[in-house]
Amino acid sequence: MSHDYKFEGWLGKDKDSADGKMVWGEFPNPKPFEETDVDIQITHCGICGSDLHTLRSGWGPTPYPCCVGHEIVGKAVRVGSKVEKGIKVGDRVGVGAQASSCLKPDCEECSSGSETYCQHMVATFGSQFPDGSNSYGGYADYHRAPSHFVMKIPEALPSEEAAPMLCGGVTVYSPLKNNGCGPGKKVGIIGVGGLGHFGVMFAKALGADKVVGISRSHEKKADVLKMGADEYIATNDDKDWAKHHARSLDLIICTVSSPSMPLMDYLQLLRVKGTFIQVGAPEDKLPDMNAFAFIAKGVKFGGSMIGPPWQIEEMLNFAAEKGVHPWIQKVPMKDANKAIVDMDQGKARYRITLVNEKHL
Amino acid sequence: MSHDYKFEGWLGKDKDSADGKMVWGEFPNPKPFEETDVDIQITHCGICGSDLHTLRSGWGPTPYPCCVGHEIVGKAVRVGSKVEKGIKVGDRVGVGAQASSCLKPDCEECSSGSETYCQHMVATFGSQFPDGSNSYGGYADYHRAPSHFVMKIPEALPSEEAAPMLCGGVTVYSPLKNNGCGPGKKVGIIGVGGLGHFGVMFAKALGADKVVGISRSHEKKADVLKMGADEYIATNDDKDWAKHHARSLDLIICTVSSPSMPLMDYLQLLRVKGTFIQVGAPEDKLPDMNAFAFIAKGVKFGGSMIGPPWQIEEMLNFAAEKGVHPWIQKVPMKDANKAIVDMDQGKARYRITLVNEKHL
Repeated sequence: MSHDYKFEGWLGKDKDSADGKMVWGEFPNPKPFEETDVDIQITHCGICGSDLHTLRSGWGPTPYPCCVGHEIVGKAVRVGSKVEKGIKVGDRVGVGAQASSCLKPDCEECSSGSETYCQHMVATFGSQFPDGSNSYGGYADYHRAPSHFVMKIPEALPSEEAAPMLCGGVTVYSPLKNNGCGPGKKVGIIGVGGLGHFGVMFAKALGADKVVGISRSHEKKADVLKMGADEYIATNDDKDWAKHHARSLDLIICTVSSPSMPLMDYLQLLRVKGTFIQVGAPEDKLPDMNAFAFIAKGVKFGGSMIGPPWQIEEMLNFAAEKGVHPWIQKVPMKDANKAIVDMDQGKARYRITLVNEKHL
Repeated sequence: MSHDYKFEGWLGKDKDSADGKMVWGEFPNPKPFEETDVDIQITHCGICGSDLHTLRSGWGPTPYPCCVGHEIVGKAVRVGSKVEKGIKVGDRVGVGAQASSCLKPDCEECSSGSETYCQHMVATFGSQFPDGSNSYGGYADYHRAPSHFVMKIPEALPSEEAAPMLCGGVTVYSPLKNNGCGPGKKVGIIGVGGLGHFGVMFAKALGADKVVGISRSHEKKADVLKMGADEYIATNDDKDWAKHHARSLDLIICTVSSPSMPLMDYLQLLRVKGTFIQVGAPEDKLPDMNAFAFIAKGVKFGGSMIGPPWQIEEMLNFAAEKGVHPWIQKVPMKDANKAIVDMDQGKARYRITLVNEKHL
């Protein structure tokens, strides 16, 4: 197969790009091909909140030009001689939010299946590989990735549904699994957007006794119950909700990232020794916390970031087996600028997948 | 044996009592004797930071008059017909910071060995029993307690050393045990006062690979190494300590309760997926926290409150077996007013036990 394709895609050139002003162009200084790499002809890419945060430099200065998108699915079109997992040309594969880590045997994180937390973690976009080349995301035609971070997509999963699982899905699947979600547990999901809707469906599929969707208004209630939630709490509309539902949940996954969220009220919902995991990353500091809320119930507040490749594969197989189907909207790749604005305005129900129609 | 003894002790009558102005007197409205109770002739009582917080209404309004002290050791002199654990008149017994809980079979906490977190928890002093009588602590001659919360003291433990374990000891032993302190783990103890010195000794006795004492200055370094710590960090004196020791500890127990403590720096010390447990209870809110500190390393912040009776017994037996000897100063009960002022000024090295000499 010829390898004369070009690495080009939608580029954010400054903060205004987040307002739907990305421009199509070629990537400066892309990653040179190595024998451990896979080139992917992109067919689908999910839109993640991180894309917006990065385009507008919300989490710190972005190295422009930046092509975002880290929920990438497509066809392997070039495969090095030293790739992992037996990936072959023609395979349907995906890449999530992580492009690389050191993978050294003496790295505590890489050697223990926690590649996500390796200090040499390279993000799929807006980051740099050790050789100084830039990482570019999947709002594009082609993507080059080290095979350790390339996952085969199970046959039963449609590409448009697999794509948003690669970051959005695993971001909630990982803390659910790592904190014992399953039979005997009552689980709350705060914020029912892209991440949260995965949270409700995965918690239910994992066999939690009760799944509670928690959002501000009743607007999404019918949807959330349809996704599988047993109960719904609307924090702006339900009177005394924190008191009424106090000590009711073993595990809460919080996908909300507003610095004004009612965190101390959320913590009231935890049962004794319960766990609250923050996955939404605010652009500001967390709301004030009081030590007594933790000491008086023996509860914990933690964070979690995406998930390592082995856990993404586990999740994809689990979703295929259990028939977990995200609620997605498909938008042509050419309309990416409009799609990110819709996403930013909260119009996604509940995740948008860009479809690169010329590669279908 | 005659039961005509009087329930009297050092009473705090207002906030000024914390400045060494407690007055000796009889307890108004003490607990009536029930057949599940044990009366204890007090020989020893440790001084705990909680005593000071309560005397000066630091954690909220205190119901004066209040007799503090919840590290009580003495001789059982009256034992009801329905007591637990086979306690007999003449036994050497102790009581910690908890006097009662509902103990109902349908209570999630009491039925699972988490009596500490029962919603009907009654504190050893400054609290009320369900019948409306008041709870009074151990700066006194006699103490009456439900036998479920009375522990036998192992023969190998001197009373003056067992006393401060009943609250101070278990406050750190419990989170160390509950969060996997042992071989293969590196553990930090922040603040090396009464609680922290127990933390260093218990972490070492539990077999942690490395124990690090963390304090502000180098003043206590020699002591802390003598207690068994492998390393010492002085946060005011050691340059770039947070960076230098970043990602080095699996578990941190924080006994400091200052709202100005450098919490974000402390969190830097945690390894990936590490746990930080706050046991010092500030009179104010916690310092600001940033979500990225949690998300980027998958770490957790939690709280822990004393420990249930079964765990206090486990700790006493463990301390006896391993020869854990707290560093204490003995002060006659009659000098309690001076002793609490010394304690408040940080003069204790490292815990003070009041000795009721007339009962020895």
